[in-house]
Amino acid sequence: MKIITLTTDFKDLYPACMKAVILDMCEGPTFIDLTHDIKQGDILSAAFALYTTTHLFPAGTIHLAVVDPGVGTSRKAIIVRAANHYFVGPDNGLLIPAAQSMGDIEVFEIGKKAMLGKVSNTFHGRDIFAPTAGLLASGYKVEDIGQPIESFKKLSFGEANATVDKLYGKVLYIDSFGNVITNIPSKMLEAFAKPAEKLLVQGNVAFYSPTYGKVQKNELLILTGSHDFLEIAVNGGNAAQRLDITDHPKIQIEK
Amino acid sequence: MKIITLTTDFKDLYPACMKAVILDMCEGPTFIDLTHDIKQGDILSAAFALYTTTHLFPAGTIHLAVVDPGVGTSRKAIIVRAANHYFVGPDNGLLIPAAQSMGDIEVFEIGKKAMLGKVSNTFHGRDIFAPTAGLLASGYKVEDIGQPIESFKKLSFGEANATVDKLYGKVLYIDSFGNVITNIPSKMLEAFAKPAEKLLVQGNVAFYSPTYGKVQKNELLILTGSHDFLEIAVNGGNAAQRLDITDHPKIQIEK
Amino acid sequence: MKIITLTTDFKDLYPACMKAVILDMCEGPTFIDLTHDIKQGDILSAAFALYTTTHLFPAGTIHLAVVDPGVGTSRKAIIVRAANHYFVGPDNGLLIPAAQSMGDIEVFEIGKKAMLGKVSNTFHGRDIFAPTAGLLASGYKVEDIGQPIESFKKLSFGEANATVDKLYGKVLYIDSFGNVITNIPSKMLEAFAKPAEKLLVQGNVAFYSPTYGKVQKNELLILTGSHDFLEIAVNGGNAAQRLDITDHPKIQIEK
Repeated sequence: MKIITLTTDFKDLYPACMKAVILDMCEGPTFIDLTHDIKQGDILSAAFALYTTTHLFPAGTIHLAVVDPGVGTSRKAIIVRAANHYFVGPDNGLLIPAAQSMGDIEVFEIGKKAMLGKVSNTFHGRDIFAPTAGLLASGYKVEDIGQPIESFKKLSFGEANATVDKLYGKVLYIDSFGNVITNIPSKMLEAFAKPAEKLLVQGNVAFYSPTYGKVQKNELLILTGSHDFLEIAVNGGNAAQRLDITDHPKIQIEK
Repeated sequence: MKIITLTTDFKDLYPACMKAVILDMCEGPTFIDLTHDIKQGDILSAAFALYTTTHLFPAGTIHLAVVDPGVGTSRKAIIVRAANHYFVGPDNGLLIPAAQSMGDIEVFEIGKKAMLGKVSNTFHGRDIFAPTAGLLASGYKVEDIGQPIESFKKLSFGEANATVDKLYGKVLYIDSFGNVITNIPSKMLEAFAKPAEKLLVQGNVAFYSPTYGKVQKNELLILTGSHDFLEIAVNGGNAAQRLDITDHPKIQIEK
Repeated sequence: MKIITLTTDFKDLYPACMKAVILDMCEGPTFIDLTHDIKQGDILSAAFALYTTTHLFPAGTIHLAVVDPGVGTSRKAIIVRAANHYFVGPDNGLLIPAAQSMGDIEVFEIGKKAMLGKVSNTFHGRDIFAPTAGLLASGYKVEDIGQPIESFKKLSFGEANATVDKLYGKVLYIDSFGNVITNIPSKMLEAFAKPAEKLLVQGNVAFYSPTYGKVQKNELLILTGSHDFLEIAVNGGNAAQRLDITDHPKIQIEK
């Protein structure tokens, strides 16, 4: 059994095109759509999606990720191997945090062998990345498909900091509920505040609460999310809209 | 072959997290997403989704359903067995109508064995329900995973009634077309009205019609839906918007 | 391994109902959702979706497509065979362009054998088309399920034309990015304009560009899309909104 996950910023017919190419190369893979709801070109959100999810899959899984604003330019196409997981996608940092969280990483530039006959300028997901995943799923070794490289694009989730009365961090991801997930580790939060303590986030009162159900409806809360980062939520509502947060701004939590 | 269906009120990365946990426990399950479009916390709609769909699957199917406003509180986690189908989810009534429609039901409280090492307060789908489905799909017996219980939350679709000139019922589900599905059985409708008869629904004229195409465009119609309940639709339009229906109000059909 | 693709204009529970019926008839098919985002009743868009995608799948694939405004009327239910691909759906033209692009086609009317006991008036996807796909996936021959017919509904993508200073065509598809895909072949475009040339589309300036990244952000561009047709896009934006295009209007590109 070969498991192939897909993470992209495109919907519609395009994920199915990638799956078709893979099905034409190998028998019976299991496809898991991680998400296709990434905002167009939002590499950081996609990197977080991979980081928080891919480690749950068994070893041997192939993670195909295409958020690729540089498609058609000279950016490289790469495979990253870590702890027997395989990440396939563009060399723009997207794959790195997830792979690094699993262990030592090796990076390979994808060679011509893995490309479809005629590579389009706009859809390397179908023409380069899917065929690469197809070769890996068929049993080809990474070394047969790509060349090891030393230089590749890195991506960091940034640093979070704590003082006695403030936490500083950055928004990594806004989920489909409007929950705002930051890069502040849950341990930093747990050392900072006591359950039910009143805090301030961007000037709004929020309660530190172990779970959604423990605060009033429509109330803002700060919690340790399922991703093990500080998360800002509204019980039964949308925190990103409430706080007018889009993209990846800096964020402060105050006592 | 093990079939696992998924019904949730969350999208984004969260269904894939549940699938990852299961894939790490058993080989080659077939995942079928029933729907992830349930409105947050709308237990009744999710119960209807299960009721109308799960019986179409072959015996042995595992139905994982997580619409769980009480996550992190003391509500139980349960497995319901009926006619060799397995329903896994929170003890809030969600699983009961579908299971009861298949035959006698047995209810089991999920024990610690089925839980991931560290259970989060916010995502029992990943930490309790997915591992339970993974154990069932791996061949564990329900009796190995849970304890039989007698007391559990029930959920009813409510009663529908007919007089000579009125039908009374309740909205169970609004589908993505805006079709309004009620709890009035199609047999009650067929005894009440003749095809092409003019009826009134919430003060609006609607034709009783065997099919969408038989009325004018944009016209309101009342029909026997594919779910075998009275359904209100607009030919080429959105009935829920037209009638300003959200949630699960009572509904009256008049001659 | 049997691969079954699904293309519909309905979401929610309905695709899962079709998969359930098939799973009850055959072991271990691989389902690939091509798209369920077709606008309700938009046969031409769905025909394009099939045309641009199905040929990427391996021979033997079954393509189940249900965009069926005539459900419940007397339109036929058909199977189309071409190059060992099987297309199953209503006789309204939907299946024809994709099948014809693969080679000679044979058309069969689906007989009673393939229908579920009680066929509803509103959901032939579940009651006729899914069981037909299930029989094909179980190894039944087309000839066992249907009768060859000579007369069936055709559908054309229309003609594209070029003069010295104008290209004439028609909009086939608007994708989820808002890219506008026309029926003008990329070869016609390549003979008409040089890279970076300024063109006019519906009175708006657009650059002919080999790839998205080569123009300014928010600029309109004309390119050879991944579908091998002339495509109109906005770098980082939505071309259909910019040009106020919905449905399938005629389109002109001028020098």
